[in-house]
Amino acid sequence: MPATFIQHPFMSQAALSDCNADAMVEAMLSFELALAEVQEAHGALPAGTASAMAERLTAHVFDMSAIAQGVASGGNAAIPFVKQGRAALPDTLKRYWHQGATSQDVLDSALMLLIKPRLIRIDALLSRCRDAAIPLMKDHAATVMVGRTLMQQALPITFGVKVAHWALGLEQSRRRLAPLVEHGLPVQFGGAVGVHSGWESQGLDFMDALAERLGLTAPVLPWHTDRQPVHALATGLDAVAGAAEKVALDVSLLTQTEVGEVSEPGGEGMGESSSMPHKRNPVRCALIRGACRQIHAHTTVILNAAAQPLERGLGEWHAEWAPLVDSALLLEGALEQLAVLFEGIEVHPEAMRRNLAITGGAIMAEPVSRLLAPIMGQDAAKRVSAEAAEAARHTGRPYSDVLAEHADVKGRVSPDALAEAADPGLYIGSSRQQVTRAAQWLTSV
Amino acid sequence: MPATFIQHPFMSQAALSDCNADAMVEAMLSFELALAEVQEAHGALPAGTASAMAERLTAHVFDMSAIAQGVASGGNAAIPFVKQGRAALPDTLKRYWHQGATSQDVLDSALMLLIKPRLIRIDALLSRCRDAAIPLMKDHAATVMVGRTLMQQALPITFGVKVAHWALGLEQSRRRLAPLVEHGLPVQFGGAVGVHSGWESQGLDFMDALAERLGLTAPVLPWHTDRQPVHALATGLDAVAGAAEKVALDVSLLTQTEVGEVSEPGGEGMGESSSMPHKRNPVRCALIRGACRQIHAHTTVILNAAAQPLERGLGEWHAEWAPLVDSALLLEGALEQLAVLFEGIEVHPEAMRRNLAITGGAIMAEPVSRLLAPIMGQDAAKRVSAEAAEAARHTGRPYSDVLAEHADVKGRVSPDALAEAADPGLYIGSSRQQVTRAAQWLTSV
Amino acid sequence: MPATFIQHPFMSQAALSDCNADAMVEAMLSFELALAEVQEAHGALPAGTASAMAERLTAHVFDMSAIAQGVASGGNAAIPFVKQGRAALPDTLKRYWHQGATSQDVLDSALMLLIKPRLIRIDALLSRCRDAAIPLMKDHAATVMVGRTLMQQALPITFGVKVAHWALGLEQSRRRLAPLVEHGLPVQFGGAVGVHSGWESQGLDFMDALAERLGLTAPVLPWHTDRQPVHALATGLDAVAGAAEKVALDVSLLTQTEVGEVSEPGGEGMGESSSMPHKRNPVRCALIRGACRQIHAHTTVILNAAAQPLERGLGEWHAEWAPLVDSALLLEGALEQLAVLFEGIEVHPEAMRRNLAITGGAIMAEPVSRLLAPIMGQDAAKRVSAEAAEAARHTGRPYSDVLAEHADVKGRVSPDALAEAADPGLYIGSSRQQVTRAAQWLTSV
Amino acid sequence: MPATFIQHPFMSQAALSDCNADAMVEAMLSFELALAEVQEAHGALPAGTASAMAERLTAHVFDMSAIAQGVASGGNAAIPFVKQGRAALPDTLKRYWHQGATSQDVLDSALMLLIKPRLIRIDALLSRCRDAAIPLMKDHAATVMVGRTLMQQALPITFGVKVAHWALGLEQSRRRLAPLVEHGLPVQFGGAVGVHSGWESQGLDFMDALAERLGLTAPVLPWHTDRQPVHALATGLDAVAGAAEKVALDVSLLTQTEVGEVSEPGGEGMGESSSMPHKRNPVRCALIRGACRQIHAHTTVILNAAAQPLERGLGEWHAEWAPLVDSALLLEGALEQLAVLFEGIEVHPEAMRRNLAITGGAIMAEPVSRLLAPIMGQDAAKRVSAEAAEAARHTGRPYSDVLAEHADVKGRVSPDALAEAADPGLYIGSSRQQVTRAAQWLTSV
Repeated sequence: MPATFIQHPFMSQAALSDCNADAMVEAMLSFELALAEVQEAHGALPAGTASAMAERLTAHVFDMSAIAQGVASGGNAAIPFVKQGRAALPDTLKRYWHQGATSQDVLDSALMLLIKPRLIRIDALLSRCRDAAIPLMKDHAATVMVGRTLMQQALPITFGVKVAHWALGLEQSRRRLAPLVEHGLPVQFGGAVGVHSGWESQGLDFMDALAERLGLTAPVLPWHTDRQPVHALATGLDAVAGAAEKVALDVSLLTQTEVGEVSEPGGEGMGESSSMPHKRNPVRCALIRGACRQIHAHTTVILNAAAQPLERGLGEWHAEWAPLVDSALLLEGALEQLAVLFEGIEVHPEAMRRNLAITGGAIMAEPVSRLLAPIMGQDAAKRVSAEAAEAARHTGRPYSDVLAEHADVKGRVSPDALAEAADPGLYIGSSRQQVTRAAQWLTSV
Repeated sequence: MPATFIQHPFMSQAALSDCNADAMVEAMLSFELALAEVQEAHGALPAGTASAMAERLTAHVFDMSAIAQGVASGGNAAIPFVKQGRAALPDTLKRYWHQGATSQDVLDSALMLLIKPRLIRIDALLSRCRDAAIPLMKDHAATVMVGRTLMQQALPITFGVKVAHWALGLEQSRRRLAPLVEHGLPVQFGGAVGVHSGWESQGLDFMDALAERLGLTAPVLPWHTDRQPVHALATGLDAVAGAAEKVALDVSLLTQTEVGEVSEPGGEGMGESSSMPHKRNPVRCALIRGACRQIHAHTTVILNAAAQPLERGLGEWHAEWAPLVDSALLLEGALEQLAVLFEGIEVHPEAMRRNLAITGGAIMAEPVSRLLAPIMGQDAAKRVSAEAAEAARHTGRPYSDVLAEHADVKGRVSPDALAEAADPGLYIGSSRQQVTRAAQWLTSV
Repeated sequence: MPATFIQHPFMSQAALSDCNADAMVEAMLSFELALAEVQEAHGALPAGTASAMAERLTAHVFDMSAIAQGVASGGNAAIPFVKQGRAALPDTLKRYWHQGATSQDVLDSALMLLIKPRLIRIDALLSRCRDAAIPLMKDHAATVMVGRTLMQQALPITFGVKVAHWALGLEQSRRRLAPLVEHGLPVQFGGAVGVHSGWESQGLDFMDALAERLGLTAPVLPWHTDRQPVHALATGLDAVAGAAEKVALDVSLLTQTEVGEVSEPGGEGMGESSSMPHKRNPVRCALIRGACRQIHAHTTVILNAAAQPLERGLGEWHAEWAPLVDSALLLEGALEQLAVLFEGIEVHPEAMRRNLAITGGAIMAEPVSRLLAPIMGQDAAKRVSAEAAEAARHTGRPYSDVLAEHADVKGRVSPDALAEAADPGLYIGSSRQQVTRAAQWLTSV
Repeated sequence: MPATFIQHPFMSQAALSDCNADAMVEAMLSFELALAEVQEAHGALPAGTASAMAERLTAHVFDMSAIAQGVASGGNAAIPFVKQGRAALPDTLKRYWHQGATSQDVLDSALMLLIKPRLIRIDALLSRCRDAAIPLMKDHAATVMVGRTLMQQALPITFGVKVAHWALGLEQSRRRLAPLVEHGLPVQFGGAVGVHSGWESQGLDFMDALAERLGLTAPVLPWHTDRQPVHALATGLDAVAGAAEKVALDVSLLTQTEVGEVSEPGGEGMGESSSMPHKRNPVRCALIRGACRQIHAHTTVILNAAAQPLERGLGEWHAEWAPLVDSALLLEGALEQLAVLFEGIEVHPEAMRRNLAITGGAIMAEPVSRLLAPIMGQDAAKRVSAEAAEAARHTGRPYSDVLAEHADVKGRVSPDALAEAADPGLYIGSSRQQVTRAAQWLTSV
């Protein structure tokens, strides 16, 4: 359980139990055992060494608190782990352990192994969001609501097109992140200074074979201080965070009491206020937004640590670990909330219609004045459409009725034409076409 | 000339004269004229409208200071530009001007048009760096130098492999950025609320045709508040900055007076100190690092503004403009310096050899003890190799000579074998192979 | 005029014309002339030197484009400026020019001189905001509106207390920034490596005297790579930005069409939408928020550059200049908007009352159930108060009337008591007291 | 133990065991019990209520995993804690529990209670650093070393003055942070919407009394969405991080193998390299730098969340918790390392002397040419001093000897005067005076 509960609400519970100290040790061990297997396969270790090592160490119970002690003096978790692993081996095997590797090889590779299942899960959650979004946007392709720019009512859109835009953002970010699962999580193996000291051409062969055995990418070269892969990963996670945060921002604005166009799905105790029973807080949105803001900050560590000195960072590398892993965990947590949100969002078309009417019709003044312009000139058309909107708002009567009775309009335009021009539902532009196009793109590939 | 000179040293002079207020107005005008052409081609404007408009406006001298006045009250440059453009048209054309467009359409598209030549130039500069790096790394594939981890001497590498790692970082970032020139700079066209109000299915057709005419990407849908394209662009630029900064960091460390393994290329007045004639400051590195740090910060604006509310940002969008353009200009400036650096870097192999010797040989203690271990056991081997290194450092004699005379060694190991084990030039691991592999990758498509 | 207009909307026009390349040269010249005066006063220069220098150089027209050329090769503006200044002096004076100074002395001091008037103006703008806020919060001390948590209606507050909170935030930040005008803008003077090489104890005397002459702070020691003063300045500016942004965020939420509780003050062309005449966009809020987001990013450059290597930064120092100056200019621009906003904000108490009613009374369910609890028990009280709120919302009738007629209430509680408990205007807690306390604090000192 | 060990090396072990989930629950409980005491003292609760509550709850074992479950649905740790606390009370006390408070009151106050001992410890560690720095800088007030600008050798300084600059940076940041312990950690108490709903003037009295009872600051008003105190705290912590990082950066540069002027103090297993016995890695510097980079990023969350909407943040508030607490813990960890570093740093004056000589004397060319100028003119003086330096570097002979034999110098300047001018130890400017001045300031109150 995380200290002080402060990260707890944001993170995926599933992920937290997958991605812990045991998993870290397991990942480091996987690296070392795979290395022995690879070296044995290349004739660099006596036959049977790798399996003898594996037999000893997979059964070995690592002393986690000794590792915790050791990380501070060594500066990273690989150092006490390697020491403990060596101690657990019989003398005959000790010299083959961690052969040709450096602690950064172990740690970078282990982090990639830890992150891989997180990326897979993030991809699955994004797909869940997309799969929920597609029917939602189709069902509401023509559900009229007002579009708002600078948070002011502007002109009509549909709820479907809004969902389509959400889904596009998420899917763009998914398509940016997805290739990284296959090609963006490189194994690290370069030895003390990144040139496989003592191994010559075998070094690169070991590296490639290790990648294959561990299900990681084979990099062109070791990347101890070339952190482009980490930059691509961190900014890829951040892109997803931005897309998720956009949905949460919109939902939190649309759930405002005065707007009320959608509600967050409930859940046991979700969003309750102990003192104010009338409230249903958009807690999922708060958690998503809270998590994503932290991800943006974590990403800045990576941006500022892309340049690492000479053959090993002096703090720059060390600074990367927590931001990278925490970003993945926070994002996974945020997407768990987002998937539930997409699957259970409550849409209130009647509130959307109510809100379309609150300016009296002023938001339809533009199409109305377009209708009137050929009859009375552009200036008069603008004046009349605005006056009628003002009157409609004051009296609470329908805009088209007030228009029809206006002295300058009466008898010159048919009430049907007026009603049509003043109907937000008939002024949704390309909303339907956008939903169709988005659905095609979302389901393509 | 930028106010107060404070950005001046970092930015590309070529870019600054390309990317100014005139260019911005020109880009906005290109958008509007292309829109008229597209609408005319689709029958939405009378034949001849677009060319009549173009005739008037390409000759028109826009009042730049009136635009500057207007941006503050309107909140963006498109508003006063559109107003001025309309005023310059004859009455018959006024209504066809900016038809169906919103100021964000104009501004987002104009920024993409401004940035496109910057990306092309950045790509060219990165290619120049790569083209200079390839012969440099081949020439120095076997130029031995010491590798340094946590800034401490560790084991030998070659200068060629270091250059290969630099080039890989840069090329990775180039390959990330390059596709954006073709597919990552989308036109913006959605009208007031992003759904082409009043145009129905034609809206998307206009958008696609506009993209083609302007040489920009056709997005799936308008992206007024889906800022994934901006996130991809900004983080792509930042990745290049990180790769450039890595080279500058290494060079600045290697040019330290006490290290002196490389020098920055000179240049008129470049790096001179008025009061200290012995100094040659790595000014290019300072400028690259200064620029890149600012780029990282600009990128954080984009990360934090990826989520924009409803149908138009309220400050989030506005905050993007300067960071995006400035990042491109700063990066271009940094790469101009970097290209000169790659093309003219002075390499000092004799300093590299001198530095390899300053620990007496201690950095070769590992291979030496590997040689001695079969003869005297691992513990004795470690002790002897360390003792001899200490003695060599104190006396200034060659490590292998001191070793050969050591009581425990004399007569048990041939001097030739000792000399070989103690020779840094024979312990460069996969350095040569890495250079070969890097060169292949760098020249592959 | 700033390139491409992209910074133009955000920055103070007054500041932009004060704080330009001419001002920068003037500030650098002030430093050099003050240095000569100080050295002459200490007997380190022949009598009359300083005034002779001043006579020559204050009349001299510096070649701005040559300086612009020189900054890139020298790496900062002081280098070409010093060179040009020396060239403009007669031979007899050349050797006394820039004596004992280094380019960082000139540049750091000049930046402090440039920033000082900006801080004074920022303080004045903050005082203007405070002076406008005090009557506003007193006038509206009892103007009831709904308080919103997680953007959901919660319980009543008053508009006055909201303004008091805004004013407190701004005034806290003002009181943090204000001392920096007097004590936080240190002169820089340390010579080549910060120890006044060649001057011994006179070095510190010169530094102190320079500070006095230039109206800057005398630091304990030169601070070439001790950037605490820059950190304090940048984070102090950022604190003001945060306080300003809070007001803009609230105002933009309260001006939403559906909420409509306040309006931004108008202004020529301010917030107009060319295509949608019914809209009045909160452009001032957008500009404030847009500026502040950029300030936060600029601040991250300073945070990440607080540690500078050895006796002079290698890029870290260079990276500071633009973020520092731009932050001040952006903040001044934002506060110009904010002051107008405070002075002209339109408050709509009727909209506040309307919004208090839209939940039917549910927001008053808590005080109502407190009234009913002693009579019918806590559980029944909660149920009844909630049922009545639901009924009130559906029927549109006043909450207290519906309550009075509820079967469980009728005859057991007086209608007056019910009306009182259901009246938001009587449930404003410490709102009035908070306004009083805030006013006292704001006008204290 | 933190998941995956990734934060473990950076954080203070003492702090981690103080600042955990138990401490969080204890802090929340302290708040609630103090609230009851205050309300009882003001007659708002029956006599004896507070002690009855305390008796029950201080003995109660909170179900930590139930709280962990509850945080995700409620959105913060206070909600499940309050629920569990109420359930543990007898019915007669339940209604007096958490009376008038909201979850943000509990959480903000609890975080301040958690952070207070961290600030006290940070202050103590900074004092330890200062106390170690003072004798160090005095002892080395005249220990000559070379000053380096842009990492190039420039002119002499002393190690004492370098330590003085380090100590000044740290002490400036300490004096910025120290007042926050007494005046910068405000209690939070405002109730649901920050206006003490239902309590009128008593609200502010409770708030003030609570502050006193909990040893926290009484704010002017509740600060639910006025985050200036959080901004001041986070940026204050960041300033310390910057000052610490500066020392670590310098030490890591000075410990480079080729420079070797200082060494990090050892420690069991500290800085060892398993494969390279000759290495002593500056692990403390790496950990300090790694921690500080993360602190800078955490700070950006706070900068970007200073503006929070209306009466409660929707994610902005939530995002603050972890960055704030983690910053304190990371900083405490970094300062533990730094204190050991100051107390045990090994200084190598002989290496400093060796490095002063490696340019042959070129770094003394400026004072030498000042000596020669009156005799042979400025241009000749510059040429001669540079030629001699070049010769000295090539031959390895002392600069003053080579100078004395130079054809243009021989017989014109006394060898003693030459030796004096070429002696770096006599060209240390105000170094001694700076040490004295710094010591005075450091020990002033």
